[in-house]
Amino acid sequence: MKKVILTGDRPTGRLHVGHYVGSLKERVKLQNSGDYDEIYIMIADAQALTDNAEHPEKVRQNIMNVALDYLACGIDPEKSTIFIQSMVPELTELTFYYMNLVTVSRVQRNPTVKAEIQMRNFEASIPVGFFCYPISQAADITAFRATAVPVGEDQLPMLEQCKEIVHKFNSVYGETLTEPEIVLPSNKACLRLPGIDGKAKMSKSLGNCIYLSDEAEDVRKKIMSMFTDPNHLRVEDPGRVEGNPVFLYLDAFSRPEHFEEFLPDYKNLDELKDHYTRGGLGDVKVKKFLNNVMQAELTPIRERRKMWEQRIPEVYEILREGSKAAEAKAAETLRDVKAAMKINYFEDESLIK
Amino acid sequence: MKKVILTGDRPTGRLHVGHYVGSLKERVKLQNSGDYDEIYIMIADAQALTDNAEHPEKVRQNIMNVALDYLACGIDPEKSTIFIQSMVPELTELTFYYMNLVTVSRVQRNPTVKAEIQMRNFEASIPVGFFCYPISQAADITAFRATAVPVGEDQLPMLEQCKEIVHKFNSVYGETLTEPEIVLPSNKACLRLPGIDGKAKMSKSLGNCIYLSDEAEDVRKKIMSMFTDPNHLRVEDPGRVEGNPVFLYLDAFSRPEHFEEFLPDYKNLDELKDHYTRGGLGDVKVKKFLNNVMQAELTPIRERRKMWEQRIPEVYEILREGSKAAEAKAAETLRDVKAAMKINYFEDESLIK
Repeated sequence: MKKVILTGDRPTGRLHVGHYVGSLKERVKLQNSGDYDEIYIMIADAQALTDNAEHPEKVRQNIMNVALDYLACGIDPEKSTIFIQSMVPELTELTFYYMNLVTVSRVQRNPTVKAEIQMRNFEASIPVGFFCYPISQAADITAFRATAVPVGEDQLPMLEQCKEIVHKFNSVYGETLTEPEIVLPSNKACLRLPGIDGKAKMSKSLGNCIYLSDEAEDVRKKIMSMFTDPNHLRVEDPGRVEGNPVFLYLDAFSRPEHFEEFLPDYKNLDELKDHYTRGGLGDVKVKKFLNNVMQAELTPIRERRKMWEQRIPEVYEILREGSKAAEAKAAETLRDVKAAMKINYFEDESLIK
Repeated sequence: MKKVILTGDRPTGRLHVGHYVGSLKERVKLQNSGDYDEIYIMIADAQALTDNAEHPEKVRQNIMNVALDYLACGIDPEKSTIFIQSMVPELTELTFYYMNLVTVSRVQRNPTVKAEIQMRNFEASIPVGFFCYPISQAADITAFRATAVPVGEDQLPMLEQCKEIVHKFNSVYGETLTEPEIVLPSNKACLRLPGIDGKAKMSKSLGNCIYLSDEAEDVRKKIMSMFTDPNHLRVEDPGRVEGNPVFLYLDAFSRPEHFEEFLPDYKNLDELKDHYTRGGLGDVKVKKFLNNVMQAELTPIRERRKMWEQRIPEVYEILREGSKAAEAKAAETLRDVKAAMKINYFEDESLIK
């Protein structure tokens, strides 16, 4: 069986360092591992519209941003197929038929849906499209016969829902769909990077994100203004590293070689944490180190992004070609699905004659 | 503005006389009136699958039955486009986007959905697809820019839902969709014909239907076994005509000329009812008259059906051609919808470049 990856992002804003360590970095690693036969990366505009129906321009304007962020991070269109969800109408057809295999109460029990509804203050006024997005995601995953879905741990219930649909479909209509597995990031610190204000979630509206497209100076300013341990007032005070954004970012970004290069007084992160915990280590020193570490990681990304920004028509073609390739693959799966359901009447006339 | 009709039936069984007087007869009249520019008649297999996902063969096997019933009743493929819903994938794409414009609680309040859920004993285990069928119907109606939807009164809430979607879409994305109007049958008696057992609904599982494809002798037997007024035991007893299936069927089928032809002792139905109410008129006599009336109406239908049964490959071609024409029309609407939503990125590159 082919090894296939499906992953993607909603185009509701530029991508930030949370996306990067939580998923993009891993994707590039998987892409370059050579272990996968096909990799599909979806710009999920249709999914973004499920809770942005009245602001389509916000979604539209961010498609190019997300594509640039992908290319900047090292997604290589020769190895990965980048496509726009709404340009693959087969996905809506699969969604439509899968909707018959899931009950309303099953979706209501989905913890991710519950959490998202709460986060968006939707309550009674959830759009039906948003309510159904686990089913739409199952269509996305199965359309490409994905075997591996690299996402955050919070997406586990979505994968479970997808597997249930696969089982149900295969048991009703015969073996047709491929069951996916979740691929979690190896570094736990990367699973959910907080905002620079220490809030659990980075969000555009909170203004607490470091974007991949931020200029070096903006990154520096954001890091220097980062929330730390509020009780660590004087350098000599003992400090807490747990829940301290600066250290959570170091967990996600720093590698031993960074110490050698930028902070040779310490061998590794544990030594730095020990000193901070004991007292005698100031926030500014740690932040300056974090800045050096992050600039080392983000500079090549920023430079590649600037390079691609000069080649927008080429990016447009990458998206057009990717969408075409993605549609061809999804159409193949849809043909199998319709044949299994025996609703391909005009391909097999014995069905209704 | 063009005058366009969209209507259809779920292929879950052969069509019966309830379908005929409640809708098919009216459709043929509308078709032959010459008042409409386009008429689309949909065999709603995809909708039937929303609550028959595990029995696709039942749906599939009835597509040809419904097509034969249509042709038998006088639907003329030269004037009306008969098509199969699942062969028009554009409908699922429209459904997908309309789902963002309707809240879950709005669908829950839809009286038709409520009633159907109860009728099917679904309660907590409603399939999501079934739950969403008002939205899917709105897609069907608007895809063809239908201005007139000839359905029963019980479908009014569905039309309301459709109009809401039209208004919402047009207000968010600009004037795009056409608002439909419901066309109710002119004869109130036709709105809901009971089963021959007096039960409110004709249903295959209750075995209380007279089918358009029933042989003359079967029709006669069913009529002679019909439920009447249970207190009308002897001919001389006064009888009730209200709620009496035999008279409800006469309300729907008999015309003054039938009396002249088959029962010249009475001028019209009122006289017959008066006699029955006074007492002195036996059920058998009334049933024999009803049989004559119904045979007069059903015989030409049965004969046309037998003729078409000999020409199945031709019917298959009618469905194929109809589905192709329907898809072309739906694709045109979908293009307008996507242009209005500005998600036609590869047709208008200014959108994301």
